[in-house]
Amino acid sequence: MVTRISSPVLVFKRFSSTTYTSKALPSKAHLHKPIADDNFPKGYSLAGVHCGVKKKAGVLDLGVIVSTSPHPTSVAGCFTRNAFKAAPVLVSQEVLTKNGGRARALVVNSGCANAVTGKQGVEDAWAMAKATDDLLPTPPNSALSETLVMSTGVIGQNLPIQKILSGITSLRSSLSSSFSAWESAAKAFMTTDTFPKLRARTFTIKGKEYRLAGMDKGAGMIHPDMGPPSGQLHATLLGCILTDAGVSPRSLQSALNYAVDRSFNSISVDGDMSTNDTIVVFANGAATETGSKEIDESTDPEAYEIFKTELTSFAADLAQLVVRDGEGATKFVTVTVEGAPTYEDAHKIASRISTSALVKTAIYGEDANWGRILAATGSLRLSEPLVPSRVSVSFVPADGSSPLPLLVNGEPEVVDEDRALEIVSKGDLGINVQLGLGNESAKYWTCDFSYEYVRINGDYRT
Amino acid sequence: MVTRISSPVLVFKRFSSTTYTSKALPSKAHLHKPIADDNFPKGYSLAGVHCGVKKKAGVLDLGVIVSTSPHPTSVAGCFTRNAFKAAPVLVSQEVLTKNGGRARALVVNSGCANAVTGKQGVEDAWAMAKATDDLLPTPPNSALSETLVMSTGVIGQNLPIQKILSGITSLRSSLSSSFSAWESAAKAFMTTDTFPKLRARTFTIKGKEYRLAGMDKGAGMIHPDMGPPSGQLHATLLGCILTDAGVSPRSLQSALNYAVDRSFNSISVDGDMSTNDTIVVFANGAATETGSKEIDESTDPEAYEIFKTELTSFAADLAQLVVRDGEGATKFVTVTVEGAPTYEDAHKIASRISTSALVKTAIYGEDANWGRILAATGSLRLSEPLVPSRVSVSFVPADGSSPLPLLVNGEPEVVDEDRALEIVSKGDLGINVQLGLGNESAKYWTCDFSYEYVRINGDYRT
Repeated sequence: MVTRISSPVLVFKRFSSTTYTSKALPSKAHLHKPIADDNFPKGYSLAGVHCGVKKKAGVLDLGVIVSTSPHPTSVAGCFTRNAFKAAPVLVSQEVLTKNGGRARALVVNSGCANAVTGKQGVEDAWAMAKATDDLLPTPPNSALSETLVMSTGVIGQNLPIQKILSGITSLRSSLSSSFSAWESAAKAFMTTDTFPKLRARTFTIKGKEYRLAGMDKGAGMIHPDMGPPSGQLHATLLGCILTDAGVSPRSLQSALNYAVDRSFNSISVDGDMSTNDTIVVFANGAATETGSKEIDESTDPEAYEIFKTELTSFAADLAQLVVRDGEGATKFVTVTVEGAPTYEDAHKIASRISTSALVKTAIYGEDANWGRILAATGSLRLSEPLVPSRVSVSFVPADGSSPLPLLVNGEPEVVDEDRALEIVSKGDLGINVQLGLGNESAKYWTCDFSYEYVRINGDYRT
Repeated sequence: MVTRISSPVLVFKRFSSTTYTSKALPSKAHLHKPIADDNFPKGYSLAGVHCGVKKKAGVLDLGVIVSTSPHPTSVAGCFTRNAFKAAPVLVSQEVLTKNGGRARALVVNSGCANAVTGKQGVEDAWAMAKATDDLLPTPPNSALSETLVMSTGVIGQNLPIQKILSGITSLRSSLSSSFSAWESAAKAFMTTDTFPKLRARTFTIKGKEYRLAGMDKGAGMIHPDMGPPSGQLHATLLGCILTDAGVSPRSLQSALNYAVDRSFNSISVDGDMSTNDTIVVFANGAATETGSKEIDESTDPEAYEIFKTELTSFAADLAQLVVRDGEGATKFVTVTVEGAPTYEDAHKIASRISTSALVKTAIYGEDANWGRILAATGSLRLSEPLVPSRVSVSFVPADGSSPLPLLVNGEPEVVDEDRALEIVSKGDLGINVQLGLGNESAKYWTCDFSYEYVRINGDYRT
């Protein structure tokens, strides 16, 4: 998973010229690989198609996922806390809450976020949901809809809804559970992503084997803060996790809340939160042909804990893929803050370091400028004041070799700059901050800030 | 004050190449102009020199300002709220508080921030203060010191203290009140600044004329949050304002607190707060030869209000110069948030928009992407929830022509993209956000995010 830089060519000129020559951008194609069909959870059919939201022919922009399980399918979701929640977020929240955590389908389009689109936007999102209900193997159990909706792309433009509705109808014949169907659905999520983000794994609870698979998208406007479907929500990270375990709606939501805090809510590409961020999880019980009791926190806490831990670890894998594909990213950085008085304090500092433009440009420039890490660390008000003489900072190499101390108990180390450069010039590295105030810790994943980020985002709509 | 772009050459290539060609960077040299000697406040002597903190010969890196007034000189300061306050910040705070708001000199060096330098750093900062006391026209009134200290530059390195102390001694002969002395002192503050930031103005209270002059520095690590010398402080913006009005220490501090909130604490270049940020103001009463009663809030509130208003307006001018010289900046953006329930809410949203990487890269790319402004606006928790249907966003041209509505009461306008481009392609523009929730408003000043920012900060220490 290490991305490496080829040809370190650095030709920078200032004022006299307007040309910037950067290191070659690392390819991320190797992060997408085939997965054997039987590694995917049972009881799901998927498809993806080009319906015309995106101009370029052949680029997938519409996907559906349908649960075909004969058992009840639970669904949980975490949605952006942005005040300007996009229409698909409002519709998905309503489906989820009014159906008591039951749904069987997901429809997603890329190219247009259907955000800040007023009443028309909400009508369009409902039309997508209803059209997708027609792809269910049996008629909907809910008069409302059994479909959740996701959209991603430009804000403030209406969907080309007729193209989308025709596209949904056309997907019926291609629904499949093969790897290529999963891959097509994952591709339909993509915007500035450079590879489809699809992963699968198997886990065991009390001797019984279950499967998890998931896909997500996101490369920019990534700094999610998502919560359960109530209160004030918002972000454009989209993700969907599917399992063939059976889990009660209530326990699925509580496991997802825990997992999202430690995965998708702990990543940043650019510090900007979107109006569309949504993560959903489906649990359809299809692993057991006869159906079995759904896992529930109160009736079987042991099974629930195993499921929650698996879900959290899997969600972290998916979330990290987004950072690896961060717009213009050439580095993948794991920020760990330890010794904090509370988890919230640790998370806040890790987030501040992860969004610091100065830290991120220094890492792009392979400059071991730990002073910027320290300035970011000190800039927040915490539940108790930082004590500078207790703070230590080190770089942690991704290859397992010894960490390099930069600051120990508030005093700068005499740093071996060659060793620092060796660590920072790798594609993966860790920044470790020890506060010396308590026992809580948090992890955050971020990337560097490059010329390519400026290019992508200075020129997005053209 | 409008910075304009010449030759709009845009040649962007992705992946196939590693070269980025940007628009020509605007020169900012015209923002520094000569000022007539008698426009400066009376009773101050200044000098600047190259002492060797910076390697390049002839580049000024040490400056002093001495009050020569026969009347008492009041001093007030606002200091960074960073937990890792640099040694000069600690020393200046102690001088200020222990001397009850009286001091007569300021010494500043650039090239090394004397931050995170432990006990040695504090000893060095005291040595700078004591050496500068020797330049006072009469012996110090305080056993401690009558000098405030400022340092800016790289974090975590010790000062070359002998070079600095020799430099201070050598300055005695060049102390002067001429424009070129003021200019030399202003140059000694500079790090990545591209021009010295020096301004002067005259104001009148009850028929009597007074003068204000000031200088500041800063181009990166600019997102100050400064408060009076108590509590937990930190930032690297340095500034110094001098007046020949007489103001009591207590009223000078309260006027400065008010002014700093609406000037230096309302600017951002990169969202990063420094360990050294310091703004001080000297008031030496030298406008009146015989000396007169100091202006005080309780004894003459009318005079105090006039002084506070002048100081705030002057501080805003100086603060805006820092944004105009922001690292890599090609645009100057005034963000105004109106209709907020509280000033803090308005300030928080203006700050979030001003630090959004997506908003800043869009402005660099001259893309009227208001969706990013909206996403930033909606991402915060306020004292009361935002109502999307009451929010309006517009671009405000700097030339006084009509604003361009982008979103009105939550509904997107059909935007004339040519007109939008016309506004965004100018060097100066405004973003106006109306929340429709109350009567409070706040202004913030920010710049765009360019290739040049990445270059400067990916390559700072080499």
